[in-house]
Amino acid sequence: MNSAGPISPSLPPPLPEEVLADLRRAVGPRWVITDPDHLLVYEADAQTGHRGLPQAVVLPASTQEAAAVFGCLHGHGIPVIPRGAGTGLAGGAVALQGGVVVSTARMNRILELDPDNRRAVVQPGVSNSRLSAAAAAFGLHYPPDPSSQTACTLGGNVATNAGGPHCLKYGVTGRYVTGLKVVLADGEVMHLGGAGREGSLFDFVGLFVGSEGCFGLAAEIEVVLAPTPEGACTLLALFDTLESAGKAVTEILKAGLLPAALEIVDRNTILAVEASAYAAGYPTHAGAALVVEFDGYPEGLEEEVVQAEERCRAAGAWEVRRARTPEERAALWKGRKKAFGAMGRLAPDLVVQDATVPRSRLPEVLARIDGIARHHRLRIANVFHAGDGNLHPNIVFDRRDADETRRVEEAAREIMELCVAVGGTITGEHGVGLEKREYMPLVFSPGELEVLRGVKRVFDPAGLCNPGKVLPPSQEGRGGPGEGAPDEAVGGGRLPGLGGRGGEG
Amino acid sequence: MNSAGPISPSLPPPLPEEVLADLRRAVGPRWVITDPDHLLVYEADAQTGHRGLPQAVVLPASTQEAAAVFGCLHGHGIPVIPRGAGTGLAGGAVALQGGVVVSTARMNRILELDPDNRRAVVQPGVSNSRLSAAAAAFGLHYPPDPSSQTACTLGGNVATNAGGPHCLKYGVTGRYVTGLKVVLADGEVMHLGGAGREGSLFDFVGLFVGSEGCFGLAAEIEVVLAPTPEGACTLLALFDTLESAGKAVTEILKAGLLPAALEIVDRNTILAVEASAYAAGYPTHAGAALVVEFDGYPEGLEEEVVQAEERCRAAGAWEVRRARTPEERAALWKGRKKAFGAMGRLAPDLVVQDATVPRSRLPEVLARIDGIARHHRLRIANVFHAGDGNLHPNIVFDRRDADETRRVEEAAREIMELCVAVGGTITGEHGVGLEKREYMPLVFSPGELEVLRGVKRVFDPAGLCNPGKVLPPSQEGRGGPGEGAPDEAVGGGRLPGLGGRGGEG
Repeated sequence: MNSAGPISPSLPPPLPEEVLADLRRAVGPRWVITDPDHLLVYEADAQTGHRGLPQAVVLPASTQEAAAVFGCLHGHGIPVIPRGAGTGLAGGAVALQGGVVVSTARMNRILELDPDNRRAVVQPGVSNSRLSAAAAAFGLHYPPDPSSQTACTLGGNVATNAGGPHCLKYGVTGRYVTGLKVVLADGEVMHLGGAGREGSLFDFVGLFVGSEGCFGLAAEIEVVLAPTPEGACTLLALFDTLESAGKAVTEILKAGLLPAALEIVDRNTILAVEASAYAAGYPTHAGAALVVEFDGYPEGLEEEVVQAEERCRAAGAWEVRRARTPEERAALWKGRKKAFGAMGRLAPDLVVQDATVPRSRLPEVLARIDGIARHHRLRIANVFHAGDGNLHPNIVFDRRDADETRRVEEAAREIMELCVAVGGTITGEHGVGLEKREYMPLVFSPGELEVLRGVKRVFDPAGLCNPGKVLPPSQEGRGGPGEGAPDEAVGGGRLPGLGGRGGEG
Repeated sequence: MNSAGPISPSLPPPLPEEVLADLRRAVGPRWVITDPDHLLVYEADAQTGHRGLPQAVVLPASTQEAAAVFGCLHGHGIPVIPRGAGTGLAGGAVALQGGVVVSTARMNRILELDPDNRRAVVQPGVSNSRLSAAAAAFGLHYPPDPSSQTACTLGGNVATNAGGPHCLKYGVTGRYVTGLKVVLADGEVMHLGGAGREGSLFDFVGLFVGSEGCFGLAAEIEVVLAPTPEGACTLLALFDTLESAGKAVTEILKAGLLPAALEIVDRNTILAVEASAYAAGYPTHAGAALVVEFDGYPEGLEEEVVQAEERCRAAGAWEVRRARTPEERAALWKGRKKAFGAMGRLAPDLVVQDATVPRSRLPEVLARIDGIARHHRLRIANVFHAGDGNLHPNIVFDRRDADETRRVEEAAREIMELCVAVGGTITGEHGVGLEKREYMPLVFSPGELEVLRGVKRVFDPAGLCNPGKVLPPSQEGRGGPGEGAPDEAVGGGRLPGLGGRGGEG
């Protein structure tokens, strides 16, 4: 668990003047940043546990400019680190020992909005919310909705195959991306999939989605849009314990109901939210709150809502609130949506965990995570996409306390091992980045990791595209936390342990 | 267009006795078939245009046995051709010049049915319908429903990323496969994904789905099941022209409606069905019939049905029939489901085409296909998943008529080029196999094809797993129809132009 340890960035060597000249020619001098004060903006992502300064930041505005930048850096053997809005939580967009960050901030145009075919083509820097806002005029929206949706970009969503509360019913990013124009490490532009081309061919679009910038940059993204549901009804069910809330989730799904969202926040999270400026009116004596949302035709909602309410009460809910108007729904959602922001109140530092488990194991896993927290004398605040079995047990701590930091690292590893042991995996939606590299052997055999490396090499033979991310080093003795050991298997990156991606979970 | 030309199988050389002994040890002597009369059963798939005899057919019963078979063949440098029920339509499961067919017929067990997590794990030889029948006891079903669903296997569905009428709303195979235990070319067993492991990791499950046996055999398949909808209502709308039916489809989708299925059959198909034992009561003077199905909570259906009916009438439907009971629905569906079977009445031979186009281009493309048919004096019967823009313009002909056969080949290529030109692709759900290899350059650049070959090499460095399928030969001069030219790019397969897959579209 890399992110608990403090990592101080040191200034990497400046790029050779000749490279800078090439980059300035490619994007215009204004869009090549080398001033160390300005580079500081790019030293971390939203997790902040991994820090590092790039040698430069370049901001192309088009696929053509991005291809020129990638081609130039490839020619000089310099690693490239794609970056979206920096809302990622796994250190993927962070440069540890130099390299050039390619920010998609200027690639922020919606290139096409085609309501007849329910499709859009966007540049990677378009924010998730902005796409849905633009589609709203046509009664459409883009379903995957990460909690950071007002900031996070579609490019980052593609990089991490991002999920969100409504992905229970609607599916994650990969279900919606139908085509990609990608810039590979050497600057070659490749068109994968595309409108009307979803067929039974090798699914390279699916492979690229979730590859965290290791295969290249998604420079143009084609997505399908979905009709905005005509109606929705949201329930807030309050329980004494997290286990009861977990039981309600499994019972609702067992009953054949398919809510649009099934989200749980635990007591520590409720306390944080209610003490914050985002107080949502959740009772602070509740052990857990479950948000259940149904959407669809208004005529069909009532029966589903009544059934879900019954299951909640049977599982031990002592209060179930119902919201039908958009305002009431927004109020119920507030406690869930603002949870991460509010956790800053609990302690100076936060490790946002992300793992999945088979959802029938939820109550058991939640109880065992509670045991891990007690054993290590740590506070864990749980916020999660319960219907998907996607957990976010977040550990609040103070990085200045070395002993506590060590306990956080131990607890984080134990949680990952627990989730894998019950048949889950090490990340649900945030990605691997730097944060989870060392856990990859928990879920992949050495032979399987070699296949992953082999596929990476097909796209990036020189190993310059986000080297050191996702794939653990292939040598026997792996590097310790934050060491950023070189990933020799992916080829000839000159500087070891570099990274970055356009990822925001 | 390979399949129009007659291809006669010649007897390949028998396998060395030492190899046969190894295979018999692996699966038991009874399950190694070498008798030429018995091998005949495996000489073609459902398209019948590609024919060839394997050197042997082996029927393993378990992952372990399949791994032993693959390992043995790899050790002797003999190509392996996975095969499901043989309902494929692209020649993928056919051996052209020897090699060993590995049939999944005995790998037909449902290994796990876990209603709490809405999951099942099956062997590849389980038929699509049998899985849904087994899940029905728990109120669940497996949504992707190829028309061959009573025969076709889950393994073949995985190989081709198969679709079906209800994939408009529910999505194709790839959306439901969450984990795979695969046997690679050299007999190594690799576990991809798995229960609770859907996370933001490189999506190798998605990559394997649709790879048509070129990466290995899906020996254990984990799928998610979906709740069986509580209600459904089906409309049959009758039109004078195919274009009007196509217009109704685009108008229904533009209105924000999301039917479970939107299927069109044209006049030639109606004539064939009504003249057959499956007569469904479709009026034979109709130019096209559109089947529209909605499912979900009964309370919500009425509004959708009424809206769809209005759109159909506005587009020119002169009759709209409505079916609510399961019996009435089955009757309406009959004409669509039995369409392929009935076409046998029209002529001795049939080329089942498969392509996709952006659905807003449907009316235009249908009119142009009609023009192609007229120009070449051919009869085309259209049956298709209109909502997905997935066309099946089927050309009926008589292979004994050399001139007609030539015109079929020309028309088939023109149809593929047309679909690609409007932004579509060469296969929607049947796969590439041998049938579409020569069209791959219509949708992939040489550089992109190299990437495909590179990824194939990662899984199958020796090129023994379904060599010659999907990927066109990489040398400049590609082989002609049915020639089965060696695919040197994928490596050292000893015998050229071999093939096979477990695919049934």
